[in-house]
Amino acid sequence: MEFQQVIEARRAYRSLDPFPITPELIADLGRAASLSASCFNNQPWRFVFVHGAESLEALKGCLNPGNEWARDASMIVAVCSRPDLDCRTQGRDYYLFDSGMGTAFLILLATDRGLVAHPIAGYDEGKAKAVLGVPADLTLITLVIMGLHQPDLKPSLNEKQRAMEAERPARRAPAEFVFHDRWPA
Amino acid sequence: MEFQQVIEARRAYRSLDPFPITPELIADLGRAASLSASCFNNQPWRFVFVHGAESLEALKGCLNPGNEWARDASMIVAVCSRPDLDCRTQGRDYYLFDSGMGTAFLILLATDRGLVAHPIAGYDEGKAKAVLGVPADLTLITLVIMGLHQPDLKPSLNEKQRAMEAERPARRAPAEFVFHDRWPA
Repeated sequence: MEFQQVIEARRAYRSLDPFPITPELIADLGRAASLSASCFNNQPWRFVFVHGAESLEALKGCLNPGNEWARDASMIVAVCSRPDLDCRTQGRDYYLFDSGMGTAFLILLATDRGLVAHPIAGYDEGKAKAVLGVPADLTLITLVIMGLHQPDLKPSLNEKQRAMEAERPARRAPAEFVFHDRWPA
Repeated sequence: MEFQQVIEARRAYRSLDPFPITPELIADLGRAASLSASCFNNQPWRFVFVHGAESLEALKGCLNPGNEWARDASMIVAVCSRPDLDCRTQGRDYYLFDSGMGTAFLILLATDRGLVAHPIAGYDEGKAKAVLGVPADLTLITLVIMGLHQPDLKPSLNEKQRAMEAERPARRAPAEFVFHDRWPA
């Protein structure tokens, strides 16, 4: 797909159908993330691609109420990192920012392949880390819920989610976040 | 450009030529970022597009030694955010991760338009915030240095940087960051 089409097509859909997981797809998702920028090329992102039936079921048991829709995922990518995997400069830690950039590349590649990749924060981190065996000193930053978009709404969506599926949630007006030369007075 | 081409083309080049800044380009960069995902659609990113001669010169005065190459930039995007502009869940702050995702969209759009967009951490944050009037409670997370790639190396690059310009810095092997179903033992 054309780049512009991909960024327009990316949506955090919740109505998901299964899709086939292949080693090639996972390799491509990892490679896309690795092509991102990071401070001193540290590449602080670590991804657990959860697709085996048993692991996937266990991880789905860690979702918060309201994320029942994510149970329809064929794969969930657990994004993990740790402060010392990246630069720490003048009190600024880069592991979260850089992991965000890498994850964006991964999400966009998934979109380019016709998949939904919806990052969520609503899970029990301690339980999810235990399920996946993620060491205590890593942060499980997000779970990227992956599926094929199903235009007919799946029953797992609640009423509010059904409404949100229809159109892209509103974006801030440029005046709220695009400034020129100086922070606005 | 095709999406795959864009992610392959993105490089943190340091040999930069001028390019024309237009209001349309800045609007498109902001819009690309705004199309990214964020926790509860908070869109915590704030961008100061620094392109006016005076502001740009003042901001270039905040670069750390080693970043002399960035003085060739036609525009620098200061990426700012603050913890309370985004979710705080179970001790996890999302403003840096989400700002990273938004900034990746911006960087990739710049790449799609044939520009270099090179995020750096090497600047005096206090001084840069003072120059731009960024309030104390915001973090100036990165400066995205923008220019046109000049294949003939500019004199502002040091010897190490000249060597790095020739080929993409090595990426981690998949075994280091792509895991399946469980964190590796």
